[in-house]
Amino acid sequence: PSSNNRRTVTLIPGDGIGPEISRSVQQIFDAADVPINWEAVDVTPVKAPDGKFRIPSHAIESVTKNRIGLKGPLATPVGKGHQSLNLALRKQFNLFANVRPCKSIQGYQTPYTNVDLVTIRENTEGEYSGIEHTIVPGVVQSIKLITQHASLRVCEYAFLYAKQHKREKVTVVHKANIMRLSDGLFLQCAREVAEKYPEVQFEEMYLDTVCLKMVQDPTQFDCLVMPNLYGDILSDLCAGLIGGLGLTPSGNIGENGAAIFEAVHGTAPDIAGQDKANPTALLLSGVMMLRHLQMFDKAERIERACFDTIKDGKTLTGDLGGKSKCSEYTGEICKRIKN
Amino acid sequence: PSSNNRRTVTLIPGDGIGPEISRSVQQIFDAADVPINWEAVDVTPVKAPDGKFRIPSHAIESVTKNRIGLKGPLATPVGKGHQSLNLALRKQFNLFANVRPCKSIQGYQTPYTNVDLVTIRENTEGEYSGIEHTIVPGVVQSIKLITQHASLRVCEYAFLYAKQHKREKVTVVHKANIMRLSDGLFLQCAREVAEKYPEVQFEEMYLDTVCLKMVQDPTQFDCLVMPNLYGDILSDLCAGLIGGLGLTPSGNIGENGAAIFEAVHGTAPDIAGQDKANPTALLLSGVMMLRHLQMFDKAERIERACFDTIKDGKTLTGDLGGKSKCSEYTGEICKRIKN
Ligand SMILES: CC(C)[C@H](C(=O)O)[C@@H](O)C(=O)O
Ligand SMILES: CC(C)[C@H](C(=O)O)[C@@H](O)C(=O)O
Repeated sequence: PSSNNRRTVTLIPGDGIGPEISRSVQQIFDAADVPINWEAVDVTPVKAPDGKFRIPSHAIESVTKNRIGLKGPLATPVGKGHQSLNLALRKQFNLFANVRPCKSIQGYQTPYTNVDLVTIRENTEGEYSGIEHTIVPGVVQSIKLITQHASLRVCEYAFLYAKQHKREKVTVVHKANIMRLSDGLFLQCAREVAEKYPEVQFEEMYLDTVCLKMVQDPTQFDCLVMPNLYGDILSDLCAGLIGGLGLTPSGNIGENGAAIFEAVHGTAPDIAGQDKANPTALLLSGVMMLRHLQMFDKAERIERACFDTIKDGKTLTGDLGGKSKCSEYTGEICKRIKN
Repeated sequence: PSSNNRRTVTLIPGDGIGPEISRSVQQIFDAADVPINWEAVDVTPVKAPDGKFRIPSHAIESVTKNRIGLKGPLATPVGKGHQSLNLALRKQFNLFANVRPCKSIQGYQTPYTNVDLVTIRENTEGEYSGIEHTIVPGVVQSIKLITQHASLRVCEYAFLYAKQHKREKVTVVHKANIMRLSDGLFLQCAREVAEKYPEVQFEEMYLDTVCLKMVQDPTQFDCLVMPNLYGDILSDLCAGLIGGLGLTPSGNIGENGAAIFEAVHGTAPDIAGQDKANPTALLLSGVMMLRHLQMFDKAERIERACFDTIKDGKTLTGDLGGKSKCSEYTGEICKRIKN
């Protein structure tokens, strides 16, 4: 969907600091003349006739039409029976692969340097099936669901991603020593796909071993593919290595190019509305989106301006160790784009 | 069980480097005059009449009688249907809590200093239930089993441990936002137990958040309790922070004081029999065992000699950055004990 060669993108500003970091991203995109029209939607759940809360239909229609979204943080409704809205979106649009690149940012000091890896997480099933039963009081079963279909699909995506992004190795992360059938199936699918990509190295590793090696030397990893929960864990661990969720982008990829890019940090209600928030994760998610839309030059320019601003270190928000407001940080990035 | 005030302990030397690191521990214990008689048993699985491989009965009888064991690494039999022997031992003796202290070792350089925490892992159920089904080809379910009984038991243990070891805080690690019923039950049990220990701080945290914060600043954690798989992951991650599985002890604790202490690293077949192995993890597991047996002075003396040897740095094995043989490292520790 485009008009005058402009692409329409659904914007889900989200809750808490969501609106202000979304504004920041819009300003920066404007500064770079990105040919995008934003269609902002509110996804605050509405009560359906059956009493359950649902994503409002205009939001669903917008994403369905545009097939591309950028999403800020959403408050999780408290109380049982309310499925996480984040998960609902992933399921609703069948966004089967969750892609989280993790790259050291020059000038932002952590004990780790030269980290450059990407976790690719199955995003629709596994431990997130939502199927649970209380057998008798005090005895509960949760079902981890692994299908060949979803496993092959995400592994295919991972190898294709590795190939297209000139990455050398894909590591499949599993616990098939314990969950022989379920993780065994995932592993077998990874092996099957690996056969078709002889140019990409393939490695198999237990999740616990990956965690241990990751904190010892993350530079040994490149592209990692895994079932849902393992991706949840490992992507946060990796984000921690380079500075936290305030700096890491994420993309939820579906069939035929449909995708929602999102900042996975929280809504930070304590600083909301005070012009203190750090928009970097949402901005870099936007940059990922631009690459997904093949707008490589714009992506490059924005990313460069963002990284240069961080490296320069003079205009950073509080969480990055600076004293600047979100608007000042945003302004600095815009200035660098225009120069 | 004791004779002449000596305690009999089942020793499972294990495979690969197991026998040589076990010998090292025995020598060091001798140097410290530890009043222990070792009863060495081989647990190489034997084929039962039904065709399945089982732990030999003399090994089971020994642990059943002595109620205390020290265990080296075991080779995992390859092929489907062979349950991990490690798991079999944990199940056989109902060793419900897996305790892994993780403390920075002075002189051994990692990016992290002052780490001092302990992970306490539910050791009998969860994702390790072993219940899996192929529903139709390509569709598999694994069952995560959480019971109130086992959850309360391990949480009770964690709080008691915290209290006895003068630890200030217990963090319960969960994903009850996703697995509302199963992790929800575990969380509820933790809350219930926490009420009974007002002197111990209590904190609830999502597993992904724990991983992120752990790599950013592990000193914020103290005692952590969690379902089986999360403990598997987190204990390895934490071991990575202080130097790897070659340096971290572990204990599997059962009812009425029964316990097996084990080195959780691999069998290292590539260096087996070459006097190159690092016995530290098994030795420190032995030290944990001595404390469990209330032999605090002996524990202290051996631990001190081990840490002093590492700090001194002149007689270390290859994996610790040195050039010494296992026997030389062992000799140095014995010398320090005797002086
Ligand atoms: C918010 C939560 C439901 C979500 C998850 O568990 O997937 C988050 O941790 C993430 O990684 O996107
Ligand atoms: C060897 C393996 C079965 C075991 C586990 O998964 O529990 C190991 O990783 C551990 O942590 O003791």
